[in-house]
Amino acid sequence: MLEIAGKKFTSRLLAGTGKFGSYPQMEEALLASGTELVTVALRRAEPNDRSDGILSYLAHAHINLLPNTSGVRNAAEAVFAARLGREALETNWIKLEIHPDPRYLLPDPVETLKATEELVKDGFVVLPYIHADPVACKRLEEAGAAAVMPLGSPIGSGNGLRTIDFLEIIIEQSRVPVIVDAGIGAPSHAAHAMEIGADAVLVNTAIAVAGNPVSMAAAFRMAVESGRSAFESGLAGKSGTAIASSPLTAFLNE
Amino acid sequence: MLEIAGKKFTSRLLAGTGKFGSYPQMEEALLASGTELVTVALRRAEPNDRSDGILSYLAHAHINLLPNTSGVRNAAEAVFAARLGREALETNWIKLEIHPDPRYLLPDPVETLKATEELVKDGFVVLPYIHADPVACKRLEEAGAAAVMPLGSPIGSGNGLRTIDFLEIIIEQSRVPVIVDAGIGAPSHAAHAMEIGADAVLVNTAIAVAGNPVSMAAAFRMAVESGRSAFESGLAGKSGTAIASSPLTAFLNE
Amino acid sequence: MLEIAGKKFTSRLLAGTGKFGSYPQMEEALLASGTELVTVALRRAEPNDRSDGILSYLAHAHINLLPNTSGVRNAAEAVFAARLGREALETNWIKLEIHPDPRYLLPDPVETLKATEELVKDGFVVLPYIHADPVACKRLEEAGAAAVMPLGSPIGSGNGLRTIDFLEIIIEQSRVPVIVDAGIGAPSHAAHAMEIGADAVLVNTAIAVAGNPVSMAAAFRMAVESGRSAFESGLAGKSGTAIASSPLTAFLNE
Amino acid sequence: MLEIAGKKFTSRLLAGTGKFGSYPQMEEALLASGTELVTVALRRAEPNDRSDGILSYLAHAHINLLPNTSGVRNAAEAVFAARLGREALETNWIKLEIHPDPRYLLPDPVETLKATEELVKDGFVVLPYIHADPVACKRLEEAGAAAVMPLGSPIGSGNGLRTIDFLEIIIEQSRVPVIVDAGIGAPSHAAHAMEIGADAVLVNTAIAVAGNPVSMAAAFRMAVESGRSAFESGLAGKSGTAIASSPLTAFLNE
Repeated sequence: MLEIAGKKFTSRLLAGTGKFGSYPQMEEALLASGTELVTVALRRAEPNDRSDGILSYLAHAHINLLPNTSGVRNAAEAVFAARLGREALETNWIKLEIHPDPRYLLPDPVETLKATEELVKDGFVVLPYIHADPVACKRLEEAGAAAVMPLGSPIGSGNGLRTIDFLEIIIEQSRVPVIVDAGIGAPSHAAHAMEIGADAVLVNTAIAVAGNPVSMAAAFRMAVESGRSAFESGLAGKSGTAIASSPLTAFLNE
Repeated sequence: MLEIAGKKFTSRLLAGTGKFGSYPQMEEALLASGTELVTVALRRAEPNDRSDGILSYLAHAHINLLPNTSGVRNAAEAVFAARLGREALETNWIKLEIHPDPRYLLPDPVETLKATEELVKDGFVVLPYIHADPVACKRLEEAGAAAVMPLGSPIGSGNGLRTIDFLEIIIEQSRVPVIVDAGIGAPSHAAHAMEIGADAVLVNTAIAVAGNPVSMAAAFRMAVESGRSAFESGLAGKSGTAIASSPLTAFLNE
Repeated sequence: MLEIAGKKFTSRLLAGTGKFGSYPQMEEALLASGTELVTVALRRAEPNDRSDGILSYLAHAHINLLPNTSGVRNAAEAVFAARLGREALETNWIKLEIHPDPRYLLPDPVETLKATEELVKDGFVVLPYIHADPVACKRLEEAGAAAVMPLGSPIGSGNGLRTIDFLEIIIEQSRVPVIVDAGIGAPSHAAHAMEIGADAVLVNTAIAVAGNPVSMAAAFRMAVESGRSAFESGLAGKSGTAIASSPLTAFLNE
Repeated sequence: MLEIAGKKFTSRLLAGTGKFGSYPQMEEALLASGTELVTVALRRAEPNDRSDGILSYLAHAHINLLPNTSGVRNAAEAVFAARLGREALETNWIKLEIHPDPRYLLPDPVETLKATEELVKDGFVVLPYIHADPVACKRLEEAGAAAVMPLGSPIGSGNGLRTIDFLEIIIEQSRVPVIVDAGIGAPSHAAHAMEIGADAVLVNTAIAVAGNPVSMAAAFRMAVESGRSAFESGLAGKSGTAIASSPLTAFLNE
C-alpha cells in the first residue's frame, strides 16, 4: 500500500483539479478516479467561502487536499505561499512547484531544493515537482521530502514517459515514494509508470480535457491498478530475439 | 461490443495457451483474464482424450476455442490442418498462422491470402495473423477474413506497438475487427492498442511467463478495459507545446 | 562496394526526382548527392523529347536511370508499364512500385511478388518496393529480385526507421542488397539505416523539399558515407547500464 | 562557425580521451575526428611529465585542451580541482563535471551551479555538464557559463537523444552554445543532435571502444558536418500524413 509521510493510501492515482468544464464535473470525475489525494492551486482555493468555491466540491471524507504552489518563481515565494496555504486550508501537506519560466513550467532544481529544506524545517510534508533528475531527487529526499514527483515529459504534452531512462534510476535509488507527474496523457502511460515500479502517478489534463472526463477518470483508475498489479506479478523481461508462444513444430510432417 | 462473424464478445482480450507452467495454472489464468476466445495450437489439442488433455481445462461455457495452425509453412498445409481441426474440435473458426521461417515466425502474406480465400470458400471463419501491412489486411478483408490480426512487434519480443504507424492506418481502413497480435508484453501495451482504436488484442507469452500468471491475467483484463474506455471517452490529442494544468499566475504579486 | 545485378556502385545513396522546384535545381542536387542511381516515374519520362524534358537533366555518365512504376495498382499494370519503359528508356532495370491505395501508397505484397516473377522471367532487373516484411522480402529474393526495397516508415512521413525491428531481420536474412526506401526524412535517418547494415538508401522528398535542396543533398551524401563507415568500423553495442568515459576516481581524496 | 567564449572553432565535434586502447591510437583517432577541443580528466594529465604521458599525444596546434573535473562530488572539490588544473595545464577552460553518485555519474545541478558561479568569478571559462534541464541550463547561462553541456542519455549508454523533448527547449532558449554530451553512441545520434540545432556534440566512448576507433572518428566527423549542414539547409518538417514523392496518377489509364 502506498504510504506517504506515515499516511496510507489505497489509491495510487493522484489527481489535479485544473481545466475541468465545471466544478460538479470535476467532482464526479474525481470520485470516479478513486483518488484520495487531490492537488489544488493555492490561489484557486478560497477558504473563506467554502459554500460554493472549489473546496466544497472536494469535501469528501476519503479525499485529502494537496495544495500546490503553482505560479511561484523562487523559493521565497514558495515558502510564503505554502505558509499562507497551511493556515487557510489547515493542512501541512504541500506540492512544491517552482517554475520561473512561464512558457514550459519546468521546475527549478536549485530553488526547489532550497524551499524544500526550509519547508521541512517548518514542519511541512513536502512533495516537490522536479525534473526526472536522479541526483536532484536524491538531494530532495535527503532534505526531507516526503516523496519526489519527477516529470514524465513536458507538462501538458501528453507524451508519456519520455524520461524513462532516468525514471528507472530514480525508482531504483529512491527511499521515498516516486510519483510520476506531468506528461501522462493516456491510461497506457499511467500503466507504464506503474509497471516500471513508480509508487503513484498524478494525472490532471488527460482527465480534465477528455471527451468524457468521468469515464476517462475511471479508465485511469483501472490503468493504475493494472500497472501496479503487473509490477507486482512480475513482468517478463523484454527479449531481443523472437520467441514463439506456440509450439514450433511442422506438425503435419511428423 | 466486439462482434466477429456475427458472434458478440464482452471481453476484448483474446488469450493463448502456450508456455504456461501447467494446465491448471493456465485454466486459472484464463478465467482471471475474462477472455471468451482462446487460441490453441491444433497439434496440442488431442480431441480423443478430452479427459485430461488441454481441452478439458478449456471446457468453460464462456470460453470459445480458436484453433490455430501454428507450425504450417504454406497455404496447402494450413488448409489441410484447418480441416482436420474442424472435424476434431467441432468449430469452423480458425486462426490462420503461416510462417515459413522457424526463427522469427513471421507470417507469409502471399500464402496467408491464398489460404484465406480457400478456407472462406470452405465455410471457415478465418482470423489471419498478418504483418502490420495495411494493403495485406485490406486484401484479407476482401477475401472474406472475419477479422485481421496484425502484429505489434516480433512475436515473443514484448516490444509493444512498434508498428503503430501502420496499425493506425489499418484501423482507419478496416471494415472487420482489428486484433493486435504478437509483441504485447505488458498491460500498458494492451491499453495502448485499445486507445488507438484496435478492437481487441491477443496476449499469450506476457501472461504465461509472468511471475504470477493469474494476477497478470487480471492485470491485462483491466488494461484492455481501461484502454477501450479511454478510446470511447475521447483521448485528448497530443500537443507539441506545453500547456499547464494549473492556472499560470504569479499569484503572490497581484 | 555496393553491387546490384553485377553492376558496381561507389555511392550508396539512391535518389528520386519528384517534387523539386525545377529541373535545373534537381540536376544540381543530384550531382551534389553523388548518386549513381536515380529513379524516375515512367510517366514523367518523355523519351521522344530528350532535349528539354527531365531526361536531359539526368544525362550524366555516372548517373544510371531506374524507372519506377509509380501509379500502377496491380501486377498486370506494372508489367505493362515496365515493358513500355524498357523500350522507351533503353534500360531493363525497374523499380517496381505497386500501390492500390492512392492515399498511403503502401505496396501490395501479393501483386508485387506476381509482377516480380513475371518481370524476372522477361529479363528485367527488378528492385521491388515492399513493406518491411521479412517473409515478403525473402520471397521476392527467391523470385529473382535484384535487391529489396523495404520501407522505413510511411512514404513522405519523414519518420525515419519506424520498422527497425523488421529491417534488422531483413538485413540479417537477405542475400540481395537491402535498400531502405520511404520515410527517410533527415540525414540522421540515412546514417541510421547504414549503421544497422543496410546496403543503401533511397531519398527523395527530404532532399527535394528542403530549404536548400543542393546542400541538403550533400548532407545526405556525407550521412550515408558516415553511416556505412560506422557499420564497417564496428559500432559498440548499446549497454543498459551507464559506463563512464572518464576514469571514475575521487581523485582529490587519494 | 562555433564560437565559445570568443574563440572560434571550425569543428563542432568535441572529443574525449578515455577508454582508448593506447595513446597512439587515441592520437590518431583525434586527428581523424578533426576535433579542435579535447577533454581530458585532470587526474590523467600529468603535466610534469609531458614527454610520454597523455599530453604529449595531444600536443597539436589545432587541438585545444578542455580539462574536466571528472571524479569530484561537490562544488568545493570541483573548484579546488579546477584551480590545480589551471596552473598545471595553463588553460582557464574547464569542463565542469560534478557527480556524487559513482554508479550513473549523473550531474548534480545544485553543486554545478554553485561551482560555476565561483569559477566564473575566478576567471574560468566554464562549460558545465548538466542534465537536459532547461531551467538548470538557463541558470548556468545566467551565472556566466560559456556553454552548456546537457546530456542526451545516461553516460556510456549509447542510447542517443532520449532527452530530445528537453534538448529542443534548451536549444530554443539558450544564448550560449549548447553542446550535447553523453549518450551519443553512433554517428546518426550526432547528426540528429546537429539537425535539431545543437551547436556541437561531445563524443568519447562511441569512438574509443569502436572496432576501429580511427575510422569511427572520421565517421563522426562526417556525421556532425552532415547534421549541421542539414540544419542550415532547412529540414522539412515531419508530416503525419503520407505524401508521395512520385506523382500519383494511374498513368496507364488516362
